[in-house]
Amino acid sequence: MNFLAAAIAAGVAAFAASYGNGKVISKTIESMARQPELSGQLRTTMFIGVGLIEAVPILAIVVSFLILFQ
Amino acid sequence: MNFLAAAIAAGVAAFAASYGNGKVISKTIESMARQPELSGQLRTTMFIGVGLIEAVPILAIVVSFLILFQ
Amino acid sequence: MNFLAAAIAAGVAAFAASYGNGKVISKTIESMARQPELSGQLRTTMFIGVGLIEAVPILAIVVSFLILFQ
Amino acid sequence: MNFLAAAIAAGVAAFAASYGNGKVISKTIESMARQPELSGQLRTTMFIGVGLIEAVPILAIVVSFLILFQ
Amino acid sequence: MNFLAAAIAAGVAAFAASYGNGKVISKTIESMARQPELSGQLRTTMFIGVGLIEAVPILAIVVSFLILFQ
Amino acid sequence: MNFLAAAIAAGVAAFAASYGNGKVISKTIESMARQPELSGQLRTTMFIGVGLIEAVPILAIVVSFLILFQ
Amino acid sequence: MNFLAAAIAAGVAAFAASYGNGKVISKTIESMARQPELSGQLRTTMFIGVGLIEAVPILAIVVSFLILFQ
Amino acid sequence: MNFLAAAIAAGVAAFAASYGNGKVISKTIESMARQPELSGQLRTTMFIGVGLIEAVPILAIVVSFLILFQ
Amino acid sequence: MNFLAAAIAAGVAAFAASYGNGKVISKTIESMARQPELSGQLRTTMFIGVGLIEAVPILAIVVSFLILFQ
Amino acid sequence: MNFLAAAIAAGVAAFAASYGNGKVISKTIESMARQPELSGQLRTTMFIGVGLIEAVPILAIVVSFLILFQ
Amino acid sequence: MNFLAAAIAAGVAAFAASYGNGKVISKTIESMARQPELSGQLRTTMFIGVGLIEAVPILAIVVSFLILFQ
Amino acid sequence: MNFLAAAIAAGVAAFAASYGNGKVISKTIESMARQPELSGQLRTTMFIGVGLIEAVPILAIVVSFLILFQ
Amino acid sequence: MNFLAAAIAAGVAAFAASYGNGKVISKTIESMARQPELSGQLRTTMFIGVGLIEAVPILAIVVSFLILFQ
Amino acid sequence: MNFLAAAIAAGVAAFAASYGNGKVISKTIESMARQPELSGQLRTTMFIGVGLIEAVPILAIVVSFLILFQ
Repeated sequence: MNFLAAAIAAGVAAFAASYGNGKVISKTIESMARQPELSGQLRTTMFIGVGLIEAVPILAIVVSFLILFQ
Repeated sequence: MNFLAAAIAAGVAAFAASYGNGKVISKTIESMARQPELSGQLRTTMFIGVGLIEAVPILAIVVSFLILFQ
Repeated sequence: MNFLAAAIAAGVAAFAASYGNGKVISKTIESMARQPELSGQLRTTMFIGVGLIEAVPILAIVVSFLILFQ
Repeated sequence: MNFLAAAIAAGVAAFAASYGNGKVISKTIESMARQPELSGQLRTTMFIGVGLIEAVPILAIVVSFLILFQ
Repeated sequence: MNFLAAAIAAGVAAFAASYGNGKVISKTIESMARQPELSGQLRTTMFIGVGLIEAVPILAIVVSFLILFQ
Repeated sequence: MNFLAAAIAAGVAAFAASYGNGKVISKTIESMARQPELSGQLRTTMFIGVGLIEAVPILAIVVSFLILFQ
Repeated sequence: MNFLAAAIAAGVAAFAASYGNGKVISKTIESMARQPELSGQLRTTMFIGVGLIEAVPILAIVVSFLILFQ
Repeated sequence: MNFLAAAIAAGVAAFAASYGNGKVISKTIESMARQPELSGQLRTTMFIGVGLIEAVPILAIVVSFLILFQ
Repeated sequence: MNFLAAAIAAGVAAFAASYGNGKVISKTIESMARQPELSGQLRTTMFIGVGLIEAVPILAIVVSFLILFQ
Repeated sequence: MNFLAAAIAAGVAAFAASYGNGKVISKTIESMARQPELSGQLRTTMFIGVGLIEAVPILAIVVSFLILFQ
Repeated sequence: MNFLAAAIAAGVAAFAASYGNGKVISKTIESMARQPELSGQLRTTMFIGVGLIEAVPILAIVVSFLILFQ
Repeated sequence: MNFLAAAIAAGVAAFAASYGNGKVISKTIESMARQPELSGQLRTTMFIGVGLIEAVPILAIVVSFLILFQ
Repeated sequence: MNFLAAAIAAGVAAFAASYGNGKVISKTIESMARQPELSGQLRTTMFIGVGLIEAVPILAIVVSFLILFQ
Repeated sequence: MNFLAAAIAAGVAAFAASYGNGKVISKTIESMARQPELSGQLRTTMFIGVGLIEAVPILAIVVSFLILFQ
C-alpha cells in the first residue's frame, strides 16, 4: 500500500503538470506565431505561468517522496 | 490506508490546480496577444485569479500533510 | 477509512473550486480583453462569483477537517 | 462507512454547486461584456439563479452534517 | 450501508439539480442579453422551468432523509 | 442493500429528469427569444414535453418508494 | 440483490426515456420556432416518436416491477 | 444474480432503443421542417428505421424475460 | 454467472445495433431531405448497410441464446 | 467464467463491427447524396471496406464460439 | 481466467481494427467523392493503410489463439 | 494471471497502434486528395510515421509474448 | 502480479507513444500539404519531436522489462 | 504490489509526457507552417517547453525506479 500510494501521487502529479503546462505552452507558441513582436512578453508570462502551475504538482511529488521514505 | 489517502488528496489537488491555472493562464496569454496594450491589467487579474484558484487545492495539500504526519 | 474520507472530501472540493473558478476567471479575462472599459465592473462581478462558487467547497473542506479531527 | 458517506455527499455537493454556478456566472460575465447597459438586470437574475442552484447542494451538505453528527 | 445510501441519493440529486438549473438559467441570461425587451417573459418561463426541474431531485432528497431517519 | 437500491433508483431518476427537462426548457427559452410571437405555442409544447419526460422517472421514484417501504 | 436489480432496471430505463425524449422534444421545439406553419404536423410526429421511444423503457419498468414483486 | 442479469439486459436494451430512436426521430423532425413537401416519404423511412433499430433491443428484452422466468 | 453472461451479450449487441443503425438511418434521412430525387437509391443502400451492420450483433444474440439454453 | 468470456468477446465484437460499419456506410450515403454520379464506385469501395472491417470482429466471434464449445 | 484473457485480447483487437479501419475507409470514401479522378491512387493508399493498421490487431488475435490452445 | 497480463498487453498495444495509424493514414489520404501532386512525398512521410508509431506497440507485443512463453 | 504490472506498463507506454506520435505526425503531414516548400524543415522538427515524445515511454518499456526479468 | 506501483507510476508518467509534448510539438509544427520566418524562435520555445513539461514525469519515473529497487 505504501508503494502504490507513492506511485499514484507521483503519476497524477506528472499528468497534472503535463496537462497544465501543455495547454499554456502550446497557447504561447500559437500566440507568438500570431504576434511575433510580443514574443518576449508572452514568454515571460509563460515562465511565470509554468512556475505557478508546477507549484502544487511539485508539492504532490514531495508528498510522494515523504510516503516513499517514511 | 493512511498513505493512500494522503496520495489521493495530494494528487487530486495537483490536478485541480493545474486544470484551473492552465485554463486561466492560457486564456490570459491569448488575450494579451490580442490586446497587447492591456497586458498589465490582464496579468494583474491573472495573479488574483491564480491566487483564488489555488486557495482550496492548497487546503487539500494541508489535509494531505495532516493525514501524513498524524 | 477515516483518512480516506477526509482525502476524498478535500480532493473533490479542490477540483470543484478549481473547475468553477477557472471557468469564471478565464471568461472574465476574455471579456476584459474584448471590452476594456468595463473591466472594473467585470472584476467586481468576478469577485462576487468566486465568493459564491467557493462557498460550498469550503463547506466540504470543513467537513474534511471535521472528519480528520473527530 | 460513516465518514466516507459524509465525504461523498459533501464532495459531490461541492462539485455540483461549482459546476452550476460556474456555468451561470461565466455566462453572465460574457453577457455583461456584450450588453453593458443590461448589467444590473443580468446580475439580479444571476443572484436568483445562484440561489436556486445552491438550494439542493446545501441540502446535500445538511445530509452530510446529519451523517457526521449522528 | 445506511449512510452511504443517503449520501449517494443526496449527492446525485444535488448534481442533477445543478446540471439542469445551470443549463436553463445560463441560457435564460444569454437570451435576456440578446432580447432585453422579453426579459420578463423569459424569467417567468425560467421560474416555471426551475420548478419543474427541481421536482424530482427534491423527491430524491426526500428519499435520502427517509433513509437517514429510518 | 435495501437502502442502497432505493438511493440508486431515486438518484438516477433525478439525474434523468433534470437532464431531459434541462434540455427541453433551455431550448424553449432559446426559441422564445428568437420567435417571441410563438411563445404561447412553444410553452404549451414544453409543458407536454416535460410531462412526457417525467413519466418514466416518476415511475422510477415509485420503484424507489416501493423498495424503501417493503 | 433483488432490490438492487429492480433499482438498476428502473433507473436506466428512466435515463433512457429522458435522453431520447429530451432529444426529440427539444428538436421539435427548435423546428417549430423555425417553421411555425408546420407546428401541427411536427407535434404529431413528436407524439408518435415519443410513443415509439418509450416502448422499450416501459418494458424495462415492467421487468423492474416483475423483479420487485416476485 | 438471476434478477441482476435480467435488469442489466432490460436496462441496456432500453437505453439502446432510446438512443437509436432518439437520433433517427429528431433527425426526421429536423428534415421535415426543412423540406415540408417530403414529410410523407421521410416519415415512412422513419417507421422502417425505427422498426429496424428496435429489432435487436426487443430480442434483448426477450432474453431478459427468458432469464426472469427460467 | 450463466445468466449474467447472456444478459451482457444481449445488451451490448442491442446497443451496438442501435448505435450503428441509428447513425446510418439518420444520415439517410438527412440525405434524402437534401436530395429527394435520389431517395430510392439511398434507401436501397440503407437496407444493405443495415443488413451488414446487424450481422455481427445477431451473431452475438445467437451466442446469448446458446449460453442461455446450454 | 467460461460463458462470461464468450459473452464479452461476442459483445465487444458486435460493438466494434457496428461502430466501424456505421461510420463507413453513413459516410458512403452522405457522399452518394453529394456526388450521385459516383454512386457505383462508392458502393464498391464500401463493400470492400465493410469486408475489411468485419474481418477481425468475425475472428473474435470465432474465438467466442471456440470458448463456448470447448 | 484462461478464457477471459482470450476473450479480452480478441475483443479489444476487434475494436481496435474496426476503429482504425473505419476512420481510414470513411475518409477515403469522402476524399473519393471530392476528387473522383484520384480514386485509384486513394484506394491503393487505403489498402496499404488497412494492411498496416491490421498488423498489430492480427498479432493480438494470434496471442488470443495462443492463450486459447495452450 | 499470466494469460490475463499477456492479453491486456496485446490488446492495448493493438488499440494504440490502430489509433495512431488510423489518425496518420486518414490525414494522409485527406491531404493527398487536397494536394495530388505531393502524393509521393506524403506517402513517404506516412511510411516513416507508421514505422515510428508501431515501434513501441511492437515492443509491447514482445512483452506479451515474453509473458506468454515464460 | 509480476506479469500484470509488466503488461500494464508496456500497454500504457504503447498507447502514450502512439497518441503523441499520431498527433505530431498527422499534423506534420497536414502542414506539409499546406506548405510544400517547408517540408524538409517540418520533417526535421517532426523527427526531433518524435524522439522527445518517445523518451519517457521507452523508459516505461525499460521499467516493464526490469519488472519482467527481476 | 511493489511491481504494480512501479508500473502505474511509469505508465502514467509516459502518458503524461506524451500528452503534453504531443500538444506542444504539434502546435509548433502548425505555427511553423503558418509563419516560416519565425521557425527558429518557435523551435527554441518548443525546446524550453518540452524541458519544462518533462520535468515532473521524469520525477515520476525516478519514483518508479526508487520503488523498483527498494
